[in-house]
Amino acid sequence: MKLLKNRIIKDGIVLNDSVLKVDRFLNHQIDPQLMMEIGREFAYRFSSKPITKILTIESSGIAPALMTGWALNVPVVFARKRKSLTMNNVYQSTVFSYTKQETNTLIVSKSLMNKNEHWLLIDDFLANGQAAQALIDIVQQSGGFIEGIGIVIEKTFQPGGKQLREKGIHVESLAMIKSLENGTIIFDE
Amino acid sequence: MKLLKNRIIKDGIVLNDSVLKVDRFLNHQIDPQLMMEIGREFAYRFSSKPITKILTIESSGIAPALMTGWALNVPVVFARKRKSLTMNNVYQSTVFSYTKQETNTLIVSKSLMNKNEHWLLIDDFLANGQAAQALIDIVQQSGGFIEGIGIVIEKTFQPGGKQLREKGIHVESLAMIKSLENGTIIFDE
Repeated sequence: MKLLKNRIIKDGIVLNDSVLKVDRFLNHQIDPQLMMEIGREFAYRFSSKPITKILTIESSGIAPALMTGWALNVPVVFARKRKSLTMNNVYQSTVFSYTKQETNTLIVSKSLMNKNEHWLLIDDFLANGQAAQALIDIVQQSGGFIEGIGIVIEKTFQPGGKQLREKGIHVESLAMIKSLENGTIIFDE
Repeated sequence: MKLLKNRIIKDGIVLNDSVLKVDRFLNHQIDPQLMMEIGREFAYRFSSKPITKILTIESSGIAPALMTGWALNVPVVFARKRKSLTMNNVYQSTVFSYTKQETNTLIVSKSLMNKNEHWLLIDDFLANGQAAQALIDIVQQSGGFIEGIGIVIEKTFQPGGKQLREKGIHVESLAMIKSLENGTIIFDE
């Protein structure tokens, strides 16, 4: 997606060989017009699938997921990393975040996940695939179907995307980065 | 906002005299079409203000803030509750959440808050006003101006809204609830 790649080149900051900081348009400050284009692109790429709901993770997945949900006209559920006082009866799965160096438990209320729901998973980044695996685990617990995974930025030099595709899952990444070495962003065309 | 009130009546769950659970359309599962109408309504209500950026709080503020940012064509910044490894040089303020019974520190990167920015604050709920006060504190630290506060659901039986209005702040709430007693939602017309 050319618009997104141009924005990554303009505003992305390479922190080291594996971390790209995109807090000017995606995961701290958000560009709503760009998110709308991202939502429309995911809706187009998954238009042949019978998607009934979207699942993402708080907080950085919410913006792209919301716009995709708007474009597909389906509800968006975000997995919470902490249980609030008003949550009980939940599905959960654990995930290790390399960026934050911590283990989170992802939690979704069972009442929001009907059996036989057709899910599109959306997330901001795909690297080692830990978060995606946890979302897949939660959908499987609920008896739902995975129709695909939409990723805003995939780091193809890390194994998550390859592992998911080898399982036969339809993964669409709007920007694929094959290297961040020497402070330079190189896209995987 | 009639659409929102109807949805609260249909899907809101009164947990006790002070807590309304709206996890079917606002803060766990999100209805994107409703959020778009909420964003358009906030944009209309604050259309006379020279807003240059929106500030909200992860996670439940992101959806209404994003749609408002889309309608006003301005960026959205969400305050984080936890510092990620890629954040340094931040403004911060503390807030006590009655729902979660914990104190959070709200954090925003200084690089996203220019001096003289004109801010619209957006949040899902207004009750005691703790979160709003923390956002105001952060904007004031940055040297920006508060143009107004947009709230999806205000509980007018708690003092936050009154205190903010007494300070001369323009507060717009799309649904105002004056009582949740005996399991019944009564709106403040």
